[in-house]
Amino acid sequence: MLIIGEKLNSSIPSVATAIGAMDRPFIEKLALDQVRAGAGVIDVNAGAFLEREIELLPWLVTTVQAVTDVPLCIDSPSPAALAAALAVAGGKVLINSISAEEDRYRSVIPLVKKYKASIIALCMDDRGIPASVGQRLEIARTLTDRLQADGIDANDIYLDVMVQPIGTDNESGRVALAAVRAIRDQIPAIHITCGLSNVSFGLPKRRLLNQAFAVALAASGMDVMFIDPLDERMMALLAAIRALTGTDEYCCDYLAAYRAGKLG
Amino acid sequence: MLIIGEKLNSSIPSVATAIGAMDRPFIEKLALDQVRAGAGVIDVNAGAFLEREIELLPWLVTTVQAVTDVPLCIDSPSPAALAAALAVAGGKVLINSISAEEDRYRSVIPLVKKYKASIIALCMDDRGIPASVGQRLEIARTLTDRLQADGIDANDIYLDVMVQPIGTDNESGRVALAAVRAIRDQIPAIHITCGLSNVSFGLPKRRLLNQAFAVALAASGMDVMFIDPLDERMMALLAAIRALTGTDEYCCDYLAAYRAGKLG
Repeated sequence: MLIIGEKLNSSIPSVATAIGAMDRPFIEKLALDQVRAGAGVIDVNAGAFLEREIELLPWLVTTVQAVTDVPLCIDSPSPAALAAALAVAGGKVLINSISAEEDRYRSVIPLVKKYKASIIALCMDDRGIPASVGQRLEIARTLTDRLQADGIDANDIYLDVMVQPIGTDNESGRVALAAVRAIRDQIPAIHITCGLSNVSFGLPKRRLLNQAFAVALAASGMDVMFIDPLDERMMALLAAIRALTGTDEYCCDYLAAYRAGKLG
Repeated sequence: MLIIGEKLNSSIPSVATAIGAMDRPFIEKLALDQVRAGAGVIDVNAGAFLEREIELLPWLVTTVQAVTDVPLCIDSPSPAALAAALAVAGGKVLINSISAEEDRYRSVIPLVKKYKASIIALCMDDRGIPASVGQRLEIARTLTDRLQADGIDANDIYLDVMVQPIGTDNESGRVALAAVRAIRDQIPAIHITCGLSNVSFGLPKRRLLNQAFAVALAASGMDVMFIDPLDERMMALLAAIRALTGTDEYCCDYLAAYRAGKLG
């Protein structure tokens, strides 16, 4: 299981303030805290800044890469900001994101190829986010086939099942879990992820919902968790579900986490 | 989702002491605490006493039924102790348990019929507990068919998928989860349960493992949870996974639990 640390995101007010002020110590600390907590990839996002994103996203990349070798997930809706950030990034990166929307696909695929990046592929097309499990599987197949035809290795494809809030649609959690199972079963070679905290939008005790959903997603076959690794209870529950689903051989990592005092 | 409170069990030392001493206030309090915490059924077990079980199990039944109307789950490996307890029990009861072992089936089925009871049906036969998901599904089908042929309604059948400890077999959690999905898919009319805390036997931080496993089981289609309802974190996570899987319409129960301060 790969943990992508989601905290360096300009949608979080305190982080936006630090990015806007180019507060290097704040960013360095938040990057390192996530790595120490178990993040294997750090997401960086300056999307809230619109006009300044093209300046701030590369700054965020170099700031984080100055203190850690952990791969980055470069997160922007803007191909220009992605290009500027990729130009200064070192090592293997994960681009967040492409989709089956035609314009988006065409504008991002050259960057994926040029930088031999891994890619988060959103399970949506020009018709939007599909409502049914079957439609999600169909888009997942189409998108995976097209990426592979463009020379992207299955191991570099991170399919995002596009989780919607249960507060607006009671079925959206169930649909996401079923989509993960279907995609894991039908397209076993790719990674599966999602912005799982979307599921709890608008409801109280979001961390509790996110924790339960992460456990259920992991049990359904999701292998890449886009979460807050500083949530100790979340990390403990993920250690537990790995042991429970046989992906932590002999429960070695679970026992190590216990001995390190990380299970609460 | 039905919660069966598992605390009145003679395998727990403090409870065994209270049962052995016929400590009525202790038993009453533990029954009521579980009901107030959300248990819809209370399990009663005096199996640790062997010779005295036939005296103590009926005493436990009448003691608990003196303070609550919640149905009981009468839990014994001994048909004689079950018969003695059923003779004094009022209302609808759940018998724990029958199996596809020939002797056990023949000795327990008359009690199920006589008392029009619901029945926990262990997914095992004279060959033992099956290793594979396919074999479990096969026994589940055979046992369900036989019970229905004997006049037991599908709604009165609570299939126990027989969870084994992950500490001795890394695959046992994964197998149980897959068995729940297969049985929910193939035999949708019956209830599915298990003694889920078996999964964590021999490992540290058992509550954490039990919590993660309960969430994964619920997401896989288990509808009857045999747990400690006094574990507030467990109950909060189960409220969360119900909301996340669409079994709590409009998240009403989740929001009520939040307003009641039950989500931590």
